[in-house]
Amino acid sequence: MQSDNEIQGFCPCNNINLGAPVKEHLNANDDMRGQMKFGLNIPTRLMFGAGELKNLATMPLPGTKALIVISAGSSMKRFGYLSTLEEQLDKAGIGHVVFDKILPNPIKSHVMEGAELCRTHACDFVIGLGGGSSIDTAKAIAITAAMGGDFWDYVHGGTGGGKAVERALPIVAIPTTAGTGTEIDLWGVITNEETQEKIGFGSPHVFPTLAVVDPELMMSVPPRLTAYQGFDAFFHAAEGYISKAHTPISDLYALEAIRILYKYLPVAVADPKNRWARIKVAWASTLAGMVESTSCCTGEHALEHAMSAFFPKLPHGAGLIAISQAYFKTFKNDKMKRYMKMAEKMTQQKAARPSDFLDALAIMQRECGVSDIRLSEYGITPADFERMVDNACATGQAMLDLDPRFLNREELIDIYMQSYK
Amino acid sequence: MQSDNEIQGFCPCNNINLGAPVKEHLNANDDMRGQMKFGLNIPTRLMFGAGELKNLATMPLPGTKALIVISAGSSMKRFGYLSTLEEQLDKAGIGHVVFDKILPNPIKSHVMEGAELCRTHACDFVIGLGGGSSIDTAKAIAITAAMGGDFWDYVHGGTGGGKAVERALPIVAIPTTAGTGTEIDLWGVITNEETQEKIGFGSPHVFPTLAVVDPELMMSVPPRLTAYQGFDAFFHAAEGYISKAHTPISDLYALEAIRILYKYLPVAVADPKNRWARIKVAWASTLAGMVESTSCCTGEHALEHAMSAFFPKLPHGAGLIAISQAYFKTFKNDKMKRYMKMAEKMTQQKAARPSDFLDALAIMQRECGVSDIRLSEYGITPADFERMVDNACATGQAMLDLDPRFLNREELIDIYMQSYK
Repeated sequence: MQSDNEIQGFCPCNNINLGAPVKEHLNANDDMRGQMKFGLNIPTRLMFGAGELKNLATMPLPGTKALIVISAGSSMKRFGYLSTLEEQLDKAGIGHVVFDKILPNPIKSHVMEGAELCRTHACDFVIGLGGGSSIDTAKAIAITAAMGGDFWDYVHGGTGGGKAVERALPIVAIPTTAGTGTEIDLWGVITNEETQEKIGFGSPHVFPTLAVVDPELMMSVPPRLTAYQGFDAFFHAAEGYISKAHTPISDLYALEAIRILYKYLPVAVADPKNRWARIKVAWASTLAGMVESTSCCTGEHALEHAMSAFFPKLPHGAGLIAISQAYFKTFKNDKMKRYMKMAEKMTQQKAARPSDFLDALAIMQRECGVSDIRLSEYGITPADFERMVDNACATGQAMLDLDPRFLNREELIDIYMQSYK
Repeated sequence: MQSDNEIQGFCPCNNINLGAPVKEHLNANDDMRGQMKFGLNIPTRLMFGAGELKNLATMPLPGTKALIVISAGSSMKRFGYLSTLEEQLDKAGIGHVVFDKILPNPIKSHVMEGAELCRTHACDFVIGLGGGSSIDTAKAIAITAAMGGDFWDYVHGGTGGGKAVERALPIVAIPTTAGTGTEIDLWGVITNEETQEKIGFGSPHVFPTLAVVDPELMMSVPPRLTAYQGFDAFFHAAEGYISKAHTPISDLYALEAIRILYKYLPVAVADPKNRWARIKVAWASTLAGMVESTSCCTGEHALEHAMSAFFPKLPHGAGLIAISQAYFKTFKNDKMKRYMKMAEKMTQQKAARPSDFLDALAIMQRECGVSDIRLSEYGITPADFERMVDNACATGQAMLDLDPRFLNREELIDIYMQSYK
C-alpha cells in the first residue's frame, strides 16, 4: 500500500524515515480516502485517577527490579513523588535504582548511562517519572538496554544508524505534567549532543506497559507551564485531527481532547489548585497521546521542533502557540468541515465558517494568558527562518508530509514570518 | 476498593462471581462517583477495513500453526471466507487445521474437542472466523489448550470450577457479523450441555491478539439478522453508557456507536448491499465491543440471556429488542442527563426530556422493521417469568448489579410483563 508518509516532498533535504515498525504502524492509518481502512493498537494499560500513584503496588508491574528515571531538578524529591514511588515498589517487593540526571532536553549520553545502569544493577524494567524528558529517556534506555549497542544506532534520520528496534525492556510511565502524551504513545525525542541533532524516534516496542496518570502529581505545575504543556496536548489533538493520517478513532479522541482543553485549561491556569480542572486536563492530555498513537502530528510540530532546536530556551508549547494562528490559517480552506467541527466542540455553538476555529483558539490563548509570546525575546530573528525551515524538513519531513496540503518552502517561511513579533 | 460489582443484591440465588481477573479489570472502572478514577486496557490490535481479510498475510500473526474455528453451517465455505483465510495463511507460511462444528449456541464438548485438536496438531494459536459463537468458542479453546483440564474448571458461577485463567493461546478474531463485539473484548459465552447451563466467562487473557474487522464479510447477512445483531451492538453501547461501571472512555465509545447505529443500521437493513452502511455498522459494533471492555452490560443483557437460555430459538438480539422499551423506561428518571445525551446523539437535535431516548429507540426499531417481536411466538408464557428472573439472577447478577438503580424481583418480572405480547 502506498503510504501518505512516503509522499516525496520538494524539500531539498534528507527525507527522514521513521523506520519500518513505525511506518507499519502509521501505514495502517493512512488510506482514508473514503475507504475507512485503519488500524488501532494501543497496548498500554492506563490507570487514571487522582491518588493512583499510591495504589501502584496493587497494579501489575512488569518486572522485579526497576531503573527509576527522573530529572536532574529537585521537584520529584521535593514534592515527595519519588519517595511515594519508592514506597510503593518496596511494598510490592520490587527492587529499584534511581537515575536522576535527565535534562529538560534529554541527551544521548544519559541514555547510554542509564542503559549501563540497567545492566550493572540487573534492572528488568524502566520507570519514567516526570515530564516528557524523563519518560522519553526511559523509552530510549529501554531500547538500548534490551538491544545493546549505541542508542543512536536505532535512530532513523540524520546520522542515526537506522537499525530496527526488535525489543525493549518493559516501561512504566508516570507523568507529572499534562502535555506530551508520551505515557500512551510510541514516540520519544532525544538530542545527540555530539552531533547537535534533536531527533524523534518511535517503535511499537516503547508503548509503556503501564501508564499511571495521577493528576495529583500535576497540582504543583506553575500556571505558565501548565498553559504551555496544555497547548502541546491541544495541538497533538488538533494536528492529529487535520492530519492526512487521521482515522475514525483518532478523530473521536481528538475532538474530545479539544473540547475538554478549551473548557478546563483556562481554569487550571487561573486556579492551579482546582483539582477537577487538573483531572480534566490530565485526561485530555492522555487522550491527545492516544491521538498521536492513532494519527500523527503535522507540520506545526516540525516547524516548532526546528525553533526549539536552535533556541533551546523556547519551551516547546510556547513555540507551538506562537506559530499556531499562522499555521492553522494556512489550511482553513482545505479542511473547512474539520475546522468548523473543532470550533463547535470548543464553543459548543454552531460554527458559521472555518475561521471560527481560529477565533476560538485566540480566545483560549487569551484566557490562558499566552497571547503575548514574542519569538524575538528568545533570540530568534527573521534571518533564522531559512535555516529553521531547512531543519524542519531535515528532521520533520514525515510530519510535514501529513499536512492537509503540501506546503512549499515559501509557505513554510511565511508561517514563521506571520508569527514573528 | 469496594466494587460496585460486589454489591450484594436481594436476589435469593447464587451470587455469581466472574473470577478475580475480570473483577480486577472491572474494579478499575467503577469508582466513578465524582472521582474520575478508571482503567483502560484493550491490548487487541484492530485492523479495520473492507477487504482486509485479503491482507491477512501481511499482518503480524501470533504463531506458526492455527486451529481455524468455524460454524457447522455452510456459509463460511459457501461465501469463500474460509478459502480466503486459508490462502492468506498459506501465503504467510502458516499451517492450519479446520474445526467446523460450532453451533449457534456453542457447547462445552466442542470446546474440549477443539482443545484436543490443538494438542494433536500442535496448533499454537486459534482463529475464530464467523459470528460470536465461533469466536467465543475459539476463546474457550485457547484457554483449555493452554491451561489443560476441563473448560468448565475455568468457568465462574453455576457448577463451574472457578479456577483462575493464567494463560491462553493467542487468538485471532475475524467476525462475519456486526453485533457481538467479541473480537475486541474479554468475554465469551459457552453452554454446558450436560448441566444445561449457559454461562459467560471472561479473562484479560482472551482479548484477541489481532482482530480483523472486514465489512465485506458482513454483506451477506440477511436484513432481519442484520437488525438483530445491530441492536445487540446498540445495547452494548446504551447499557454500557448507563451502567454503574461507565468511564470517560467508555462514554466516548458508547455515544459514537449509538450515533452511528441510529443513522446507518436502518440503511444496512433496508439495503443490505449498501457497502458504506455495512462499513459504518461494522465500526459501530467494534466500538460497542470496546464499551464492553471499558464498561459493562447491565440487567437488560441478564434478562435476555435468561429468555434465550430457556427458549433457544429466540435470537439474542430479538430478545433484547423485545424488552428494551420496558427496560430503559425503568431508569429514565435515574439517568435523565444520560438519556437526553443518547437521544441527542441519535436525533442530532436538542433533547427536551429523558423519554426522547425511548422515542428515538422506537423510531429506530420501526425503521429496522423489528417493532413487531412477539415473545409468545417463541413459546414464552407469563408463567415463565418467575423462573426466567431466577435464571437471570443466577447467571447474570454481576450485570444486574451494574444497573443504575437496584431492581427488586417484582420490578424485574414487570419488565417481562410489559414486554409481553
